[in-house]
Amino acid sequence: MKKIRVLSGMRPTGKLHLGHLLGAIKNWKSLQSQDKYECFFFMADWHALSTAYRHSEHIAQNTIEVALDYMASGLDPEKCTFYVHSHVPQIAELFILYAMITPTAWVTRVPSYKGQIQELGEDIDTYGFLGYPVLMACDIVAFRAERVPVGKDQVPHLELTREMVRRFHFIFGKEIFPEPEALLTETPLVPGLDARKMSKSYDNAIYISDEPDVIQKKIKTFFTDPEKIHMGDPGHPEGCPVFFFQKIYNVDIAPEIEKDCKAGKLGCVACKKKLSESIIKDLAPIQEKRRELASRPEYIKEILMSGAEVARGVAEETLVLAREAVHLL
Amino acid sequence: MKKIRVLSGMRPTGKLHLGHLLGAIKNWKSLQSQDKYECFFFMADWHALSTAYRHSEHIAQNTIEVALDYMASGLDPEKCTFYVHSHVPQIAELFILYAMITPTAWVTRVPSYKGQIQELGEDIDTYGFLGYPVLMACDIVAFRAERVPVGKDQVPHLELTREMVRRFHFIFGKEIFPEPEALLTETPLVPGLDARKMSKSYDNAIYISDEPDVIQKKIKTFFTDPEKIHMGDPGHPEGCPVFFFQKIYNVDIAPEIEKDCKAGKLGCVACKKKLSESIIKDLAPIQEKRRELASRPEYIKEILMSGAEVARGVAEETLVLAREAVHLL
Repeated sequence: MKKIRVLSGMRPTGKLHLGHLLGAIKNWKSLQSQDKYECFFFMADWHALSTAYRHSEHIAQNTIEVALDYMASGLDPEKCTFYVHSHVPQIAELFILYAMITPTAWVTRVPSYKGQIQELGEDIDTYGFLGYPVLMACDIVAFRAERVPVGKDQVPHLELTREMVRRFHFIFGKEIFPEPEALLTETPLVPGLDARKMSKSYDNAIYISDEPDVIQKKIKTFFTDPEKIHMGDPGHPEGCPVFFFQKIYNVDIAPEIEKDCKAGKLGCVACKKKLSESIIKDLAPIQEKRRELASRPEYIKEILMSGAEVARGVAEETLVLAREAVHLL
Repeated sequence: MKKIRVLSGMRPTGKLHLGHLLGAIKNWKSLQSQDKYECFFFMADWHALSTAYRHSEHIAQNTIEVALDYMASGLDPEKCTFYVHSHVPQIAELFILYAMITPTAWVTRVPSYKGQIQELGEDIDTYGFLGYPVLMACDIVAFRAERVPVGKDQVPHLELTREMVRRFHFIFGKEIFPEPEALLTETPLVPGLDARKMSKSYDNAIYISDEPDVIQKKIKTFFTDPEKIHMGDPGHPEGCPVFFFQKIYNVDIAPEIEKDCKAGKLGCVACKKKLSESIIKDLAPIQEKRRELASRPEYIKEILMSGAEVARGVAEETLVLAREAVHLL
C-alpha cells in the first residue's frame, strides 16, 4: 500500500523546549511510528533567516541543536527522513516557479504578514518574509506531501498552499501535486513559567536540555494561583500552569494533587517539587541520549547528510515533473 | 592576469531579430573576443516565465531558438560560457538568501514595476515579477561578475544590485561579491518596420532567421519619410528607418544614398531593394550556420549542458562563500 506522505518543520531558532516536545514532537513521534505514514521533518533554516537575518551567526549551531533535540526526543532517522531546509536546492527552484504565478495580492493579504511586522519590527519587512507563504507551499509540494500536521492557526496558510497548487495545475494544465490536507492535531497550548505561551522569545521556557538544577530553579519561579498565598489557602488547579504539567508528568497522582490543592492540603512548594522530580526523571533518558549524540558530531552530520540526500531525491522527482509542466528546457 | 568577468542575458521569448543582433549580440561578440574579459551569457528562461507564464508552452523551444541565434551570430562557446538560467540552481538558492535581506520597499519602488504592470496587464503582478530586481541581482552575483553590459535604461537596476551587495556585506560582515559595474554600451535604438523600436511584441521585426523572400516582403512595408510620395520628392534620410539600416548594411554607399534621396533622385522602392539585398547577403552565412546547427539538436544540447556545468561550478563556489557568510549549516 502506498504510504501517505507527511511533512512538517521547525525554525532552528535555538534549543527546543517542553512546548515543542509536548506539542509538535510528541505528535511527530506518533506519526513516524504509524505504518501508513511516510514522514519528512525538517529544520527550516531558510525560514529562520527571514526573521533572524540580523543574528544569523547562530543558525548553523541552532540547526545542530534542533537535530539533537529531535533525535534525543525520539525522532528516528530509520523511521522518518529529517533534513535541513537549505540542503534541498530543489525547493528553491520550485520557489521561483511558484513565485512567478502567485499574485502579489495573495501574499500581501495574509493576515500574519502585517501582524508579524508590527510585532517583530519593520526590519523583517523584506521581500523574502513577504514570500513566506510561497516558500512554505514549496516546502510541502516539493515532497508532494499529502498531510501537514498543523494547529488550527496554520490552517489558513495551508489553504493558501492548496490554492497555489490549483493555480499551478490550472495554468500549466497538468496535475502533478496533491493538494495537501491539514492533519489537525490537538496540540495543547503549553504554558511557560509566566503562564503565557511557552516561547523562547518570552524567556519563559524549560528546555529539553536544561540540567536538573536549572529545571528545579525554573519550576520554583512558576506562576501559580495568585489567590493561594499560604499552604492552607484553597487553590484553583484548573487554571494553574503547574497543574497543567502535573496532568502530563504525574498523571497517576494528578487527581490527588487536584483534590489536595483545592482542599488547602497541598502547598505550591511541595506541588512544584513533585513536578520538578517527574520532569527531571522524564527528561533524564532524553538528556542522556542527547549528550551521547552531542559527543558524536560526525554521526549527526552523517544523519543530516543522508536525510538531505533522500529529501533531494524525492524533491528532484518533483522538480522534473514541474519543469516538464512549465516547459522549461 | 585575472580576467574581468562579464555577464549578460536575454529572455527567450522567441527568435531573435535585428534589434538583438545589432544591439546586444554585436556587443557581446566584441566582448568575448577581448582577452581581458571572461564572458557569461545566458538565456533567461526564469525571467521569461515572469511575464509569459500563461504561455509557457514555447519556452523550451524558444530557448533553443535563442541558442541557435546566439551561436549562428557568432557567440562562440569556446570563447564564452553560455547557459540556460534555470539550469543553475545555485542562482535560486542565492535568490532565497538575498530575498530575506531585501526590504520590500526596495522592490516596490522600482519604477519599471508599476509601469510594466500597466503595460502588460494585472496578470503579471505576481510575487515573482515583483522580485525581478532580486533575481537579476542574483544572476549577477552568482558569478561574482564585475561588469554588466547594459543600456542606459538598465543603470538604475544595476544600482539596486550594488545596493543589495553592500547590504549583504554589511549584514553578514563579509565581503564576498564584487559590486558590479555597468559596461555602458552605445547600443543603437534599432527601429522596426513601423519606425517604433524593433520588438517582437510590436510585430515589426526582421528576424535573424527570416528567409530572403520574407525579408524582401517585410522591407517593402518599411515605414519611410511620409513626405516623400513620388520618387522625385526630396526625402529626409536622417529620420528614415530604412536609412538607419543603410548606414549599417550599405556603409560604403550610404553617403551616396543620402545625397540621392535628398535630391529626389532615389526612390524608396529602389532604396529598399538595395537594403534587402545587403541584409539578405549579410544574414546568409548566419542563416547557413543556423540551419547547420539546427540539424544537430544533440550537439546544441551538449553545448548547453556543458555551458551549464561550467556555470554551476562557478555559481557553486559563490554559494559556498555565501552560505558561510550567512552561517548556514
